Amino acid sequence: MDIDKLFNRQGAWLQGTGPDSDIVISSRIRLARNVDGYPFVNRASEQNLVELLALVEDVFKRKFDESKVHYFSLQKMPQIDRYYLLERQLISRKLAESDIPRAVLIDRDEHFSIMVNEEDHLRLQAMTSGLDLQNVWNRISEIDDLLENELPVSFDEQRGYLTACPSNIGTGIRVSVMLHLPGLVESSELERAFRGLQKLSLAVRGIYGEGSSAMGEFFQISNQVTLGQSEEELIMQVAEVVPQIIEYERQARKHILETQKDSLLDRAFRAVGIMKTARTMSVEEAMEFLSRMRLGISLGLFTELPQEDNVSNGVPQLLNDLLLHIQPSHLCKIAGKELSGSDENVFRVAYIRKQLEDAF
Amino acid sequence: MDIDKLFNRQGAWLQGTGPDSDIVISSRIRLARNVDGYPFVNRASEQNLVELLALVEDVFKRKFDESKVHYFSLQKMPQIDRYYLLERQLISRKLAESDIPRAVLIDRDEHFSIMVNEEDHLRLQAMTSGLDLQNVWNRISEIDDLLENELPVSFDEQRGYLTACPSNIGTGIRVSVMLHLPGLVESSELERAFRGLQKLSLAVRGIYGEGSSAMGEFFQISNQVTLGQSEEELIMQVAEVVPQIIEYERQARKHILETQKDSLLDRAFRAVGIMKTARTMSVEEAMEFLSRMRLGISLGLFTELPQEDNVSNGVPQLLNDLLLHIQPSHLCKIAGKELSGSDENVFRVAYIRKQLEDAF
Repeated sequence: MDIDKLFNRQGAWLQGTGPDSDIVISSRIRLARNVDGYPFVNRASEQNLVELLALVEDVFKRKFDESKVHYFSLQKMPQIDRYYLLERQLISRKLAESDIPRAVLIDRDEHFSIMVNEEDHLRLQAMTSGLDLQNVWNRISEIDDLLENELPVSFDEQRGYLTACPSNIGTGIRVSVMLHLPGLVESSELERAFRGLQKLSLAVRGIYGEGSSAMGEFFQISNQVTLGQSEEELIMQVAEVVPQIIEYERQARKHILETQKDSLLDRAFRAVGIMKTARTMSVEEAMEFLSRMRLGISLGLFTELPQEDNVSNGVPQLLNDLLLHIQPSHLCKIAGKELSGSDENVFRVAYIRKQLEDAF
Repeated sequence: MDIDKLFNRQGAWLQGTGPDSDIVISSRIRLARNVDGYPFVNRASEQNLVELLALVEDVFKRKFDESKVHYFSLQKMPQIDRYYLLERQLISRKLAESDIPRAVLIDRDEHFSIMVNEEDHLRLQAMTSGLDLQNVWNRISEIDDLLENELPVSFDEQRGYLTACPSNIGTGIRVSVMLHLPGLVESSELERAFRGLQKLSLAVRGIYGEGSSAMGEFFQISNQVTLGQSEEELIMQVAEVVPQIIEYERQARKHILETQKDSLLDRAFRAVGIMKTARTMSVEEAMEFLSRMRLGISLGLFTELPQEDNVSNGVPQLLNDLLLHIQPSHLCKIAGKELSGSDENVFRVAYIRKQLEDAF
């Protein structure tokens, strides 16, 4: 099955819809689950892993509507497709890069995915655009219930869900919200805000999660504790802190607009000017310029913006789309061929230029 | 007299004409002379300086055609006008900034100027666009002869012309050629080329002479020795080395065009993109972008260049004009008002944008 045809190119979590979606890109919850009677993935034999896959695939076939979800074996999948799924955040880097028998079930609308034989036997995740953790929690709980009715999930009355890594034990939950925080970066308030989060045991990561750097002033905030509190409490903790961060970000944007308008205008317009004229551009640089442009738009600095339906919270869909389409594997899909490093950089900026020219 | 009306806005030495004018911006020769019977300027009394001015002004009136030259007393001149002349390289920074009785005689075509009470009593300079030291030498010699027929110039059979600073003694000559060397900068060959010049006792300075940094990859090469060789020998030394530098520069440009065309294109196009979109820009940054654009043009990277008469050696007159017009006092003249630092930067880039939009 051709993976390209599965998805419209927007990516559900990048649709720019939902509350505060000019600042909150997406909300995401994942659950770590393991199947009783099988060793954890890092101790499992090839035979164990193959059996697990078969077991889970059977549940998927019986319990999900095949016209709405798609099952992919990762072992047979070309590298470009694996990274394509990674860029869309439908699978993890670990699942993309390991070489054991593994698979993923993906909702056609990209509202959830279930990885099999990642660090844990099952990694369930649900996501949505904007800030809406309740909606995401409802969805992932439903899927979790469905699976637990079909599979013997490792659970201990004392310790809760058992996981391969102790850092996930208990609830096995990670609640993440991806934020665009150029105001806090610009006003040097970011570190102070993040220190506050650390005191609440919340972690801050880059756009591609653990170990990734913060490109384009996009950050993920997530819980670190999984044990000793209920899922609802852990979700509530993130859900309560995010509006504060949004408020800090709005204040920081207001402040820099009042005190550094010339410089803001300058950076936003230059970003557009460079994207429209450059002949080569790395993904990091493109993320940076899109970030600047996004900030400029949200502050109303551009007067020539397209007045189209697909603008939400002031951010044109085009900008959310570009965040995804400029990633290496997406670019190859768009180009219809493999691109080497320098060809990729040349194609990237040509693509951005075309998109911006069509819109402005 | 209103200084603005004196000059067409091109600046003779920036007309972009003459041999190799894509690389050689201008050729310039200055002579240091002192009048016998008066102490050097740094030891002269106010009375001495006023007398000298009167003496020289009288010679100017008798020997120059008033419709072709203009005499300005610097003491009465507003600061903006003094810096305007400095930016046009018609007077030195010392003459612009000192507060003693001092003056300048300026050729209406800006092919020569004579400073009075600079470091020496008289500083004569002649300049032209492109590489043409013979022409400049003929012109300055003629003026020198004319002055020496009218004034008792300090000259010693043994030591030659006597000057306030020993570094000018002998011939009192400084021969300078201003070059645009982005190829050598880019290919890191600059230092090697300049080490060679130092061995020949030639100095390298920035665009605004002694103590100025090299903005926009423009450099001045000039003699350091003034004693023990004839004027013709000293001129010949510069005249012989410049074609070698031009050749190195052409080779460097050819090499980077062959090996880094994408990056070259990228930098040239970005420069234009930024100049067309930025909202604030320092003079240093503007010089850098004009330099990149100039290199791009000379390598034929732009296909949409205006096909107009005033393009010489491939460089549109517009680019030479901009080098001058973006300087602070020129900008104030263009704006018709004083501009503070941030207003100046905003006005600068708006002016550049307008000029580029009209041309491209």
